[in-house]
Amino acid sequence: MRSVSIIGTGCTVFGEHWNKSFRQLIAEAGIEAIQNAGVEGKDIEALYGGNMASGRFIGQEHVGALIADQLGLNPIPATRVEDACASGGVALRSGYMAIKSGEYDVVAVGGIEKMTDVGTDQAAIALGGAGDQETELFHGASFPALYALMARAHMNKFGTTEEQLAAVSVKNHKNAMLNPKAQFHREITVADVMKSSYIASPLKLLDCSPITDGAAAVILCETEKAKEICEQPIEIIASGQASDTLALPGRKNLYETMAARVAAKAAFEKAKLTPKDIDFAEVHDCFTIAEILAIEAIGFCEKGKGGPFTEQGKTALDGEIPVNVSGGLKGKGHPVGATGVAQAVEACIQLQGKAEKRQVKDAKIGLAHNVGGSGATATVHLFKAAEGRK
Amino acid sequence: MRSVSIIGTGCTVFGEHWNKSFRQLIAEAGIEAIQNAGVEGKDIEALYGGNMASGRFIGQEHVGALIADQLGLNPIPATRVEDACASGGVALRSGYMAIKSGEYDVVAVGGIEKMTDVGTDQAAIALGGAGDQETELFHGASFPALYALMARAHMNKFGTTEEQLAAVSVKNHKNAMLNPKAQFHREITVADVMKSSYIASPLKLLDCSPITDGAAAVILCETEKAKEICEQPIEIIASGQASDTLALPGRKNLYETMAARVAAKAAFEKAKLTPKDIDFAEVHDCFTIAEILAIEAIGFCEKGKGGPFTEQGKTALDGEIPVNVSGGLKGKGHPVGATGVAQAVEACIQLQGKAEKRQVKDAKIGLAHNVGGSGATATVHLFKAAEGRK
Repeated sequence: MRSVSIIGTGCTVFGEHWNKSFRQLIAEAGIEAIQNAGVEGKDIEALYGGNMASGRFIGQEHVGALIADQLGLNPIPATRVEDACASGGVALRSGYMAIKSGEYDVVAVGGIEKMTDVGTDQAAIALGGAGDQETELFHGASFPALYALMARAHMNKFGTTEEQLAAVSVKNHKNAMLNPKAQFHREITVADVMKSSYIASPLKLLDCSPITDGAAAVILCETEKAKEICEQPIEIIASGQASDTLALPGRKNLYETMAARVAAKAAFEKAKLTPKDIDFAEVHDCFTIAEILAIEAIGFCEKGKGGPFTEQGKTALDGEIPVNVSGGLKGKGHPVGATGVAQAVEACIQLQGKAEKRQVKDAKIGLAHNVGGSGATATVHLFKAAEGRK
Repeated sequence: MRSVSIIGTGCTVFGEHWNKSFRQLIAEAGIEAIQNAGVEGKDIEALYGGNMASGRFIGQEHVGALIADQLGLNPIPATRVEDACASGGVALRSGYMAIKSGEYDVVAVGGIEKMTDVGTDQAAIALGGAGDQETELFHGASFPALYALMARAHMNKFGTTEEQLAAVSVKNHKNAMLNPKAQFHREITVADVMKSSYIASPLKLLDCSPITDGAAAVILCETEKAKEICEQPIEIIASGQASDTLALPGRKNLYETMAARVAAKAAFEKAKLTPKDIDFAEVHDCFTIAEILAIEAIGFCEKGKGGPFTEQGKTALDGEIPVNVSGGLKGKGHPVGATGVAQAVEACIQLQGKAEKRQVKDAKIGLAHNVGGSGATATVHLFKAAEGRK
């Protein structure tokens, strides 16, 4: 069975890029990844682009072809994949399977979203398309409302507190201080979160990830070949994906995320590992409650204990299992289609020991967890450093 | 190397489905395909959905998860793929690679577009997102205009006539008469086409494919397993894909389609076949000129000779190489994200000898050619009947 490794990474600064277009952002990340991999454009055999809603954000579909064109990669096959905010994760998985299939040895995977070309109201409607527009968005349930229902259910079931939710945000803002590519460089306290305005109770402004422009890219390569050309390839040792009902009413309950649990289980089984073997994780904290749901679904802590686990510092950079050392979606920013790829970029940087001030000590195996909508899609990838060229 | 076959197909009637939703259409096609394959929902391990612009047509992204949900297939991985009007072709190719990768044995592939929930003006803008919205659509160049430029270039270079373009439409309408799932059941003459209104000179109303609602689905299975469970599996013997510049100005010329040529060449090389070996083809005739460009790019006739070749009846149902016996996009209809999958459905029906009045005699090997935008994406698939269960 063929194995797949990442041999190059690229990522733009995340933020509000009023002066950069969709094309410029993806070119910046893509060229950085190609150069970082030490390959040339002509070495790349296929391309997958993760993007959620370019149609409604910039009036443009067919962005797979656009990216290949912009990077001068024609005539290679170029395909956009979309699973809402998990678009980056499924793009990574598509590239991974394309190499495993034997069709290609070297594949580029990009993720991008240019979100600030429309107003916040239009962005909220576009993002609402990640849920069920008929039974949720049409009735006013945009994403803060959906995650607020999940937060409330978790609080009712397990006694999770608003302060524990706030602890997620405080940690991720603190980590983002150490990431030069993060959108926010501003430490916050639990008190700051608690006094920020309610968006959808119990979620407040500082419980919510921002609207972000950004792009990320990785170059994938069949592992044996990767070992020849790359000093420090990062092997994707497992890729899991699962789905759940699109809308919340179909779920068995709102205090756990089934798709994430199934995707994580699939990945752990494939890699013959357990959550205990993971040294750090990038998880999908689009809202603070989402990180708590994620660490429970993956199995870093017991079900229902994600709040205290976070509050006790166990997910901090120097904790038991560092979570979102990049700053996560809350601190680093959340350009939705880019997020899943940016998580893989962070995993590589950590496993290559190049994360500087936010370096996780003795990082050997990393995990990335990416979610679409309110959990209708989840991907889980596991990474480890492979022996490279001397 | 693992091989992939189609074991079941489903397709809705194509047309204006005012009384059916996106969900209903994909459920209809999906359930038909599952039943036709003789498998159950629980046998399906992953799903790929081809869809171009659900965000702008029905306000909904994340339709991979929606389809899995609607068909009761959770928690399997479900992914939307998009390459404009080639979304169906790339979805088929994604399913094909997922099985080749060894990750899955049985995968569902759907294609769908619900286009009539918005007005024609909004539909034209949504479809314009398949081209370059910055350098083409913004300046008024919607799709009829882009293909008109290509038609004019072909006429200038090769002497192709408007009557020859019309011959494509006449043939495809004639074929559609024999397809109960086609949108149009109305024979037309060259004179009818010639006197229809100009949309973008030289293209007239009857040179253009319609706005259509519809869905199609196939069930893919690893070929050895397919032979055990299916009476007549249809093997996908090759899958090619290529890209070109998103906008027309970047192309070397406008009278040929490079991506289609590269994708076809890749498919023929993989299958060790030539255009002469093909018994019938479904090609992407979004406009009449597109079919002429397609048959030249694939190599069914000499470059520049597609007009006379068609006029002489060589692509007719009883001709040298029957093209679009289903009625094609012009006669059968063009629900953009569904088209590439519907082409595969037609290939299966023909190779299984079940096409009744439109059956191609002695059909052994079929080809499907799907295009995104003005040719920035092209996929070419080759199919042949595999030995099945007795």
